[in-house]
Amino acid sequence: MAYIDLKNKLPGIVGLMEYSPETAKPMSQLAETLLRGPSTLTSAEREMIASYVSYQNECHFCHSSHGAAAAHHLDGDMSLLDDIKDGFKKTDISDKLRALLNIAKRVQILGNEVRPEDVETAKKEGATDREIHDTVLIAAAFCMYNRYVDGLGTWAPEENEAYDESGKQLAKEGYTNSIPK
Amino acid sequence: MAYIDLKNKLPGIVGLMEYSPETAKPMSQLAETLLRGPSTLTSAEREMIASYVSYQNECHFCHSSHGAAAAHHLDGDMSLLDDIKDGFKKTDISDKLRALLNIAKRVQILGNEVRPEDVETAKKEGATDREIHDTVLIAAAFCMYNRYVDGLGTWAPEENEAYDESGKQLAKEGYTNSIPK
Repeated sequence: MAYIDLKNKLPGIVGLMEYSPETAKPMSQLAETLLRGPSTLTSAEREMIASYVSYQNECHFCHSSHGAAAAHHLDGDMSLLDDIKDGFKKTDISDKLRALLNIAKRVQILGNEVRPEDVETAKKEGATDREIHDTVLIAAAFCMYNRYVDGLGTWAPEENEAYDESGKQLAKEGYTNSIPK
Repeated sequence: MAYIDLKNKLPGIVGLMEYSPETAKPMSQLAETLLRGPSTLTSAEREMIASYVSYQNECHFCHSSHGAAAAHHLDGDMSLLDDIKDGFKKTDISDKLRALLNIAKRVQILGNEVRPEDVETAKKEGATDREIHDTVLIAAAFCMYNRYVDGLGTWAPEENEAYDESGKQLAKEGYTNSIPK
């Protein structure tokens, strides 16, 4: 049970957004822009960055939700969630994405932990300035969402399968259709 | 110099928001709602939480900018910036705010670091559910802003005094008047 009375029983960030629609609106719009707006990174790649950072932040709800969204941008195989935990041992990702995931991991620790050589490596693998910008901001934004979800002690379903349907919906309809009014 | 070519020489998050107006918009709206929207916490108190968390995240630009904004919601004394670094030894703050700052500090480490007893203590000092919610989200949001600013290697003026004028402007006009179009 959450640390405050949310007046609903919805899990993770869903219950928080229902409780606080005035902050839910810009937070949803930011997620929509970062994860589904125009970009040379696919939505699957961006959702993988989001899920990967969430796992580093120990946020089970966000890791699972965005891992499921990534899976549904691809072939729908939910074993991706476990492979994200394993550092993408089985999933076929590009060297560029691997270099961007390294930057995301540095951001997750702290902004100042990103080193010039992390950025250089990503550029050598073909990452553009815009892709590096977006990776840093996705990683930073999930340091917010994750702390919001866990800092208020919200509950989250345990099993991967519980996120299958919502992942499909996020991949198909995105983040701004269901904002509480 | 930033890790990417921002095509401007503006410091901290200002240069990033000029570079990326589509993400600047929801980020500015979130700051406006959290720091200046209707609340039983004063804007000075909320800016102090923002500045305090930014200092824990080693983000000089955000610590200074929001410390200066807090100062200008009060009497304009910029020595507040140093006292925030010192954990509010000189500033006369309420026991409730001190308990909320403790929650913010836990959030800064990680969402799961907030303990039931941290929340209980704040409630005993008179904090409402809404105030606890807002404190957690302010702290979480600055874990984003701080990482965005430092993760892309932006520059920041060193001295407290350099933030005096912008702090006054933030206190007076807020966060959404200057969003790049």
